[in-house]
Amino acid sequence: MNDFLALPARELAARMARRELSVQALVRAYIARIDAAEAGILAWQHFDGAQALQQARQLDAGPALGALHGLPIGVKDLMDTADMPTTYGSPIYAGHRPVMDAACVAMARAAGAVVMGKTVTTEFATFQPGPTRNPRAPADAPRTPGGSSSGSAAAVAAGMVPIAFGTQTAGSIIRPAAYCGVVGYKPTFGTLPSAGIKSLSPSLDTVGVLARCVDDAAFFIGAMARLPLTPPQAGQATRLRVGICRTPHWERAGDDSRRALDTAARWLEGRGAVLSDLILPAQFDELTQAQIDIMAYEAAAAFAPEMRARPDGFSSGFAALLAAGRGIDGSRFFAAQALAGSARRAFGQMFDSVDIVLAPSAPGEAPAGLGATGDPMFNRMWTLLGNPCVHVPTSTGAHGMPVGVTLIGPCRGDARVLAAAQALERCVA
Amino acid sequence: MNDFLALPARELAARMARRELSVQALVRAYIARIDAAEAGILAWQHFDGAQALQQARQLDAGPALGALHGLPIGVKDLMDTADMPTTYGSPIYAGHRPVMDAACVAMARAAGAVVMGKTVTTEFATFQPGPTRNPRAPADAPRTPGGSSSGSAAAVAAGMVPIAFGTQTAGSIIRPAAYCGVVGYKPTFGTLPSAGIKSLSPSLDTVGVLARCVDDAAFFIGAMARLPLTPPQAGQATRLRVGICRTPHWERAGDDSRRALDTAARWLEGRGAVLSDLILPAQFDELTQAQIDIMAYEAAAAFAPEMRARPDGFSSGFAALLAAGRGIDGSRFFAAQALAGSARRAFGQMFDSVDIVLAPSAPGEAPAGLGATGDPMFNRMWTLLGNPCVHVPTSTGAHGMPVGVTLIGPCRGDARVLAAAQALERCVA
Repeated sequence: MNDFLALPARELAARMARRELSVQALVRAYIARIDAAEAGILAWQHFDGAQALQQARQLDAGPALGALHGLPIGVKDLMDTADMPTTYGSPIYAGHRPVMDAACVAMARAAGAVVMGKTVTTEFATFQPGPTRNPRAPADAPRTPGGSSSGSAAAVAAGMVPIAFGTQTAGSIIRPAAYCGVVGYKPTFGTLPSAGIKSLSPSLDTVGVLARCVDDAAFFIGAMARLPLTPPQAGQATRLRVGICRTPHWERAGDDSRRALDTAARWLEGRGAVLSDLILPAQFDELTQAQIDIMAYEAAAAFAPEMRARPDGFSSGFAALLAAGRGIDGSRFFAAQALAGSARRAFGQMFDSVDIVLAPSAPGEAPAGLGATGDPMFNRMWTLLGNPCVHVPTSTGAHGMPVGVTLIGPCRGDARVLAAAQALERCVA
Repeated sequence: MNDFLALPARELAARMARRELSVQALVRAYIARIDAAEAGILAWQHFDGAQALQQARQLDAGPALGALHGLPIGVKDLMDTADMPTTYGSPIYAGHRPVMDAACVAMARAAGAVVMGKTVTTEFATFQPGPTRNPRAPADAPRTPGGSSSGSAAAVAAGMVPIAFGTQTAGSIIRPAAYCGVVGYKPTFGTLPSAGIKSLSPSLDTVGVLARCVDDAAFFIGAMARLPLTPPQAGQATRLRVGICRTPHWERAGDDSRRALDTAARWLEGRGAVLSDLILPAQFDELTQAQIDIMAYEAAAAFAPEMRARPDGFSSGFAALLAAGRGIDGSRFFAAQALAGSARRAFGQMFDSVDIVLAPSAPGEAPAGLGATGDPMFNRMWTLLGNPCVHVPTSTGAHGMPVGVTLIGPCRGDARVLAAAQALERCVA
């Protein structure tokens, strides 16, 4: 019946714009999926099917104005919505109603997207989990979906929505994508606007997307940023120079992640890619700590208002993050930023000898239990550098949970990294 | 009677912390100045003396908790305040009451500052002027105070407040400082948090300060950023290598600005500085246009919500800025960002041969009339590069209005540029 659910987002939007498919039909199909699965997953902080259908009716009644016409999307509850409550994952903001949408939400709506609801975020996009369960884990042995874009990754993985907004400050897009087995795309830092998104660490906060496939992610971001992230031609991996980067944390990568990296490299080689080992200079060993310092210093500044008005409203973990940040002085913050600047230059030069970098996405499968969202150690460095990253799910690990790899491109080389990610995606059985 | 009004902010705060001076006495003195002068200047979007006194009473009643104890400050009305209306200079937000303070406002309050009120900003920190008059111009021949931090610069120039927050995206701190004859300090990009400030162009938006003197500016920012921006020793200019940068726009600098630059250079030379001409590489000629492109592209994204909800609420000038931004595609935005990155590297290397750069702050004196806020052409490049800048007023021009110069330091070299600015300040008669 609903064969259209398998269509790429590009094709779906085009059919709806041509009135071959009504927005209401597509939205009804996704509402049915949400109604069927939500009780076991808890991906949504706010979902109101009638509200989604109302948007669909309005789109069906008017002309198709944008590239995303009729596409149902999930919006991370870190992002303001004027017509839906916005909690930022914190009891401090229970029932909060912003006066305007976040800028990226308004851009998606202006391009025709239907906001299905707000997806669960961890507390202020950090580490205190929400209730969301990983859709790929058995109900009687729950596993974390990762975080902080927990609900967005779970909703896409469960087929509740084809596309959902995420944000990443440490590893909040790539890690949940890896744990839930969906595509995660963190564009070059600054590609999409941060206005109306709860600020955590403005040097790091990056808007991106969780999606079913690489092309959906490319289509969604490309439409809003007016970037030509068009589908690459087949055979894109030919002569692609792939640098395999085991990162300074390789000893923390489990067997599943090591195998995923090796497998992805061999697949790309089989398609004509040329592999090499990318050895990072010694200064890169300090980048993860620099990311931790910058995030803590900036979070302590960004949350000064809540610290004055509602210090009782933080989880103990978030309070500890802010206390750590207040313990970092401006000179240490500047030193971390100076290191980042130097490493960005050095990393940029490495793309003279490779086209794309391949690295682990996570230590392994999603950890068991719902008490923590896993460790972003493999993501922090890339977020600090600002380069575009795509997580591609490639296989499963020892417990049958998804694993995959991260592809990293040069800054502003989003089209290149997406093309390579699509080439890798085609290798997956 | 009120001799304490001439004391440096550091000394004022220390005396209040030691209870040698009550916060209420200081705040009352400034309220009297505002009451006396405001009708002719219109620096304040919101001012309520009783509300300021209430904050002073609370500070006098409790222990001194922060370095800024009791200091009266002005807050640009681009910044959220939970206890005062916040309009962002736009009728769209008339009567708007944010739920939390902006992060920098909360930090200042946590350090003990008294928020005297909200200072006038141009519409969304761009070009549509508010009603503020330049306090240095005759009432019958009004001149612009510059913008967008119009009210902050005018309030400090009129002695209504010793210190006021500003923000700069193109030239919104340095230009009004120059036109009003006060110190303007734009710290290294990202030094203070942007959370709770209406986003215009997140790659460029920078929080800073307008102040009576360099040390007040250094004290205020240093206290919040936990940076050691302490007063330098006398004779700081000795052997200082000063690069004189006439910028790609030198032909637009009038006689007053040219003389100010030459005079400042000679003064520093007289104190032992070594002068040289800093010649910028050809690629720097494109930086001002890159800043214009980035600002327009990012503004079009940041204001997507208002564009959907209240497109009738923009001035024609702001609507034109957004339309220009929508006409810039992501590839052109990326190219401008790539140029900025390359120029940041090149400019950083120039600090191998100079300690500080000296450049014009504005084309000349504040333009006559209140219909426009002047041209930020001499500021755009430095904002895009992200380097710390200090405007020091040095003299007056042909019409008796203030002129001065900008000192630029290396990124994160805020202590150095402030020390040099203080050395120059000491040369002023």
